[in-house]
Amino acid sequence: MGNSALIVIDMINTYDHPDAELLVPSVRAALPHLTRLIERARSEGTPVIYVNDNFGEWRSHHGEIIKTTLAGKNAELVAPVLPDDDSLFVVKARHSIFYETPLSYLLSQLSVNHVVLCGQVTEQCVLYSALDAHIRRLRVTVPEDAVAHIHWDLAKAALRMMERNMGASIRNVGTVAF
Amino acid sequence: MGNSALIVIDMINTYDHPDAELLVPSVRAALPHLTRLIERARSEGTPVIYVNDNFGEWRSHHGEIIKTTLAGKNAELVAPVLPDDDSLFVVKARHSIFYETPLSYLLSQLSVNHVVLCGQVTEQCVLYSALDAHIRRLRVTVPEDAVAHIHWDLAKAALRMMERNMGASIRNVGTVAF
Amino acid sequence: MGNSALIVIDMINTYDHPDAELLVPSVRAALPHLTRLIERARSEGTPVIYVNDNFGEWRSHHGEIIKTTLAGKNAELVAPVLPDDDSLFVVKARHSIFYETPLSYLLSQLSVNHVVLCGQVTEQCVLYSALDAHIRRLRVTVPEDAVAHIHWDLAKAALRMMERNMGASIRNVGTVAF
Amino acid sequence: MGNSALIVIDMINTYDHPDAELLVPSVRAALPHLTRLIERARSEGTPVIYVNDNFGEWRSHHGEIIKTTLAGKNAELVAPVLPDDDSLFVVKARHSIFYETPLSYLLSQLSVNHVVLCGQVTEQCVLYSALDAHIRRLRVTVPEDAVAHIHWDLAKAALRMMERNMGASIRNVGTVAF
Repeated sequence: MGNSALIVIDMINTYDHPDAELLVPSVRAALPHLTRLIERARSEGTPVIYVNDNFGEWRSHHGEIIKTTLAGKNAELVAPVLPDDDSLFVVKARHSIFYETPLSYLLSQLSVNHVVLCGQVTEQCVLYSALDAHIRRLRVTVPEDAVAHIHWDLAKAALRMMERNMGASIRNVGTVAF
Repeated sequence: MGNSALIVIDMINTYDHPDAELLVPSVRAALPHLTRLIERARSEGTPVIYVNDNFGEWRSHHGEIIKTTLAGKNAELVAPVLPDDDSLFVVKARHSIFYETPLSYLLSQLSVNHVVLCGQVTEQCVLYSALDAHIRRLRVTVPEDAVAHIHWDLAKAALRMMERNMGASIRNVGTVAF
Repeated sequence: MGNSALIVIDMINTYDHPDAELLVPSVRAALPHLTRLIERARSEGTPVIYVNDNFGEWRSHHGEIIKTTLAGKNAELVAPVLPDDDSLFVVKARHSIFYETPLSYLLSQLSVNHVVLCGQVTEQCVLYSALDAHIRRLRVTVPEDAVAHIHWDLAKAALRMMERNMGASIRNVGTVAF
Repeated sequence: MGNSALIVIDMINTYDHPDAELLVPSVRAALPHLTRLIERARSEGTPVIYVNDNFGEWRSHHGEIIKTTLAGKNAELVAPVLPDDDSLFVVKARHSIFYETPLSYLLSQLSVNHVVLCGQVTEQCVLYSALDAHIRRLRVTVPEDAVAHIHWDLAKAALRMMERNMGASIRNVGTVAF
C-alpha cells in the first residue's frame, strides 16, 4: 500500500506569458475538477503540496507570489485553488517539480510513494514531473480533467506517454483514490 | 559558439524486450543515416559519446555488453554503429542519459554546450534526454532520420515537444552542423 | 575572471537546537566580521544569496521564518545580518546548500563561478557546501573569521580539508576579493 | 531491519598520484582487515559493490582499469581485493560515490538501507560518501581499520565528523554486523 500526496503544479500564476491565451480556456475548464480534487484531499487528510515556479523572483517568497497573482487580471483562476494553512509549498525554478527542489526529500519524510499530479501544463511540467516521479519509483496518477494544456494534440500524446511509458494511471477526478 | 558532441543513445542493444518488434524496423531505417552521422563526427573530430543502458548488468562492463549484443540474433543492428577506440562511453541505469550518470560532468570537462542526440527511442530516452539537456542549458539538435521509435505518432509528438518546448533544432543528418 | 557571489549560510536561526550553547559564542564572535562582509558585498554590487534551512517548516515561507527568529530570544544574532530588498533567498531542507536546491541553477543564471561562503556551521554545512561547490567546479573562498563552529578542533580540521582537498582559499574578511 | 551492502571505495588504483607516498603505507596496513571484511561479506551473501574512480578514462571500462592496475608497480595492493564474478561495479568520475553515479538507484533496487564503507581516502572520498549516504537517509558504518588515509590527523577528525554529524557507527572490522 503506501501514502498518497496531491501535487498542485504551477496554479499560482499571473497568466501573462506568451502562450497564456491558449492555456487559460483549458485552465478554466479544469478549475472546477481541480477544486473538487483539492477539497477531497483535504477532507481525507491527504497532504496537498503546491509546487510552483518562482518566475525568477528570487527576492520574493511564496506569500508575495500569491499576493501578486491575486492582484492581477486573472485572479479568478487563482483564488479557487489557493493553499490553506495546512498546505505544503515547494518553490521550483525550472520545468520539473523534482529538478533541484527538495520535493523528493519532503515526500520521503512523509513516506509518500504515490503522487497524484494536477495543474499545468499537461504536455510540459506535468509530463516532465510524471517522468521524474517514475524514475524515482513513485506511483503516478494523473486525473485528465484536472490538468490544463496549451495544445490539445500534444497534451493527448503526453497523456499516452505517461500511461504507456511511465506507468501512470490516467483517470478522472471522480475515480482518483488517494 | 562552443563545442558539440554527438550522443549515441542505447544503440548497443539485444532487441529482445517486449516492444522490439515495433522498434526494429525503425532502427533498420535509421541505421544508414546514423552510421553516416557517426562517421562525419569522427572525421570532423567531434567527440562521440555512447550513453547506453546497462540492462541491469551491474556485474558486466561495456566490453561485455558489446560482446553479448554481437553474439545475439540482432548483431547486424549493432555492428555498424560500434564504438571505436576514440569513443567515450557512459553507462546509464535509467531512462535519461543525464539521470544519475556522470555525463554532465564529462560534457563540462569537454566544454561541450551543444549535444546532437541520435539513437533510440525517440518518444522515450531521446525525449527525456532532450529535456534534461535543455534544463541544463545545453543546446540540443535531433536529426529525425537518425532516431528510432516504437510508435510513430508518439515519436512525431515527441519531436514537436522537443522543438516547441525544449528549444531543440529538429533536422536531418545532412544538415546537422557540429 | 568571472563573477562572485556571497553566500550567507543558515544565519536566520532561532538557536534553540541541542548544540546551540556551543555555537552561539562562535556566532557572536563572527558577527561583526560577517556584517562587514555583507556590507562590502552590497556596496560593491556582489549578489548576496541567503541559503537557509527551512527547519521543516514546509508551510512557512522565508518571510515567516525571519519573523519567528526576530521574535525569539536570540534576535540580536539575526538582526545584524538580515536580508535586504536586493538579497536573494534559497531555502534548503538538508545539509548542503546545493543538495536538492535550485542554487546551482541560480548561480549559472548569474554567471557566478566563485562563491564566498560565510555563516555556520564551519565543520558541517560550510564544509559540505565547499565540497559541493568544488565538485561543481566553482572556485571557493572561506573567510575564517566569518564562519561559526560548534567544535573548534573539528572546525580547524574542516578548514584544512577545504584548503587541501577542495582548493578553497581560506583567508579573513579583510582580504576577501569579490 | 533492512539490508546491508559493503561498498569498496577506490581500491582499484595505480597509486601514482601526488599523495600516493603518504597513502600507500596506510593502504598496506588496512589491506588485511579489508580483505577479511570482503570475504565475510561474500560468505554471508552481503552484496559487495565496488565504486571506483575511472581516472578520466572514459574510453576504458572497468575490466581494462583492473588490468592496468595489475600491470603496475603496486599490483600487490590491488590483487587481494579484486572484484569476483558476483561483485557489482559502479564507476564514478568525482569525489563522492553518489555524485552523478547510479549508486542510489542500485541500492534502492537491492533494498539496501545500510552501507558499510571501506577503502580510501578516509578524509576525502570516505568522508564525502558518508555525508551523501546520510543525506539520502542510509545508515552508515565505517570500520576504521579498513579505511586508508593520507593525513592521520585529518582522518581522525573525519571519523569524528562522521560519528557526530552523520550518525555513522565507527567500529572495527571484527564488530561490523551486516
